[in-house]
Amino acid sequence: MLSDIRIVLSHTSHPGNIGAAARAMKTMGFRSLYLINPKKFPHAEADAMASGAGDVLQETRVCVTLDEALQGCVYALAVTARRRELAYAGSDSRSAVLELVSRARGGPVAMVFGTEISGLSNEEILQCQAMAHIACDPDNSSLNLAAAVQVMAYEARMAAVGATIPPTPEAEPARHEDMENLYLHLEKSLLASGFLDPHNPRRLMPRLRRMFGRNCLEKEEVNILRGMLNAFDK
Amino acid sequence: MLSDIRIVLSHTSHPGNIGAAARAMKTMGFRSLYLINPKKFPHAEADAMASGAGDVLQETRVCVTLDEALQGCVYALAVTARRRELAYAGSDSRSAVLELVSRARGGPVAMVFGTEISGLSNEEILQCQAMAHIACDPDNSSLNLAAAVQVMAYEARMAAVGATIPPTPEAEPARHEDMENLYLHLEKSLLASGFLDPHNPRRLMPRLRRMFGRNCLEKEEVNILRGMLNAFDK
Repeated sequence: MLSDIRIVLSHTSHPGNIGAAARAMKTMGFRSLYLINPKKFPHAEADAMASGAGDVLQETRVCVTLDEALQGCVYALAVTARRRELAYAGSDSRSAVLELVSRARGGPVAMVFGTEISGLSNEEILQCQAMAHIACDPDNSSLNLAAAVQVMAYEARMAAVGATIPPTPEAEPARHEDMENLYLHLEKSLLASGFLDPHNPRRLMPRLRRMFGRNCLEKEEVNILRGMLNAFDK
Repeated sequence: MLSDIRIVLSHTSHPGNIGAAARAMKTMGFRSLYLINPKKFPHAEADAMASGAGDVLQETRVCVTLDEALQGCVYALAVTARRRELAYAGSDSRSAVLELVSRARGGPVAMVFGTEISGLSNEEILQCQAMAHIACDPDNSSLNLAAAVQVMAYEARMAAVGATIPPTPEAEPARHEDMENLYLHLEKSLLASGFLDPHNPRRLMPRLRRMFGRNCLEKEEVNILRGMLNAFDK
């Protein structure tokens, strides 16, 4: 689905930014790049910055106008940093992307990015259905173009696919009884060592329970701790 | 508050990435950059890529070890793309950053990024309290270093400050009675033009209500529409 969302870059000056944008897209599962009148493309700098995303650059469509790039689209989101006099009130990047992803069920949709210096023109924004503003420090809003693509593509991935965490080697979690046996063992060892005074136990055991309890120990870790206690016991 | 969150880059190879990371940080309100054994720093390429973030580079602290960079920190988050054998199960970037921002109330906290090629070592990860994985396409997880910093800094800004949208010129919204008068006017004009047949009105007026109603028109826009209707009426 993400591969059907078009990323449209209008009048990009630096070919390196096109390559970096392609790389940013690909890391998030996007594939469909449209360029409107790029200053230099194809270009060696674009290839260099694309890193492993050369295939995205090869399939890139170069258009003359935004109108051409938006053919067939049911929804287009203008991404902008500057305050606009005309055009839309705009919404924040996260809400705007949620809307975009939901519109994508109805047909092709696009995210449209302007030039490095001046962003999108009002004429371009008015060909879109909505305007997104990436949250940023109001005094330092000059996101690099590829960085803006990265953030918006990341938001779209989070909205469409959700967070994915690579699988970790399975570790058997400790069960309730493993933990209770650990606490019993701890108490016995601490009594034997003299650190826990049965006549004045203070809050030692509750504090140790609190410390180990919130840690979601693995079974193997409990075994290591009990092995340590066995060694101390001797 | 964001300015107190340290961004730590370990053994960065390309000075351009350091500059681009500084720029990414600054756009999100971060200022505190720590470098562990960078290959080349300071460097002209770092300055060039920093764009308006030269001040961040000037205040950057260069350390020899991660231990040194984390002095005083109450929480450190390792950011990684690769699957790890040891270390933590890890959580997704969004949840991990929420935790980081909440920990920042207790003292300095850090986000730690590894090298361009091999990421963080297990020894480095084990000096952190948690591990974050940026959501990405599992087959194309090679985010550029500065792009990873951009995404994590953006997430932290969203978590700490929330979305901010630059103010738009105030436009007086249309009120209920403005809309009802518009619909009355529309109906009158459509009857006069013959497009609305009073004996067979179909669902024309409800459809027009639906179309204009969800649009949250401004008062001025209603005036324009009524001016148009006046012109058609003649």
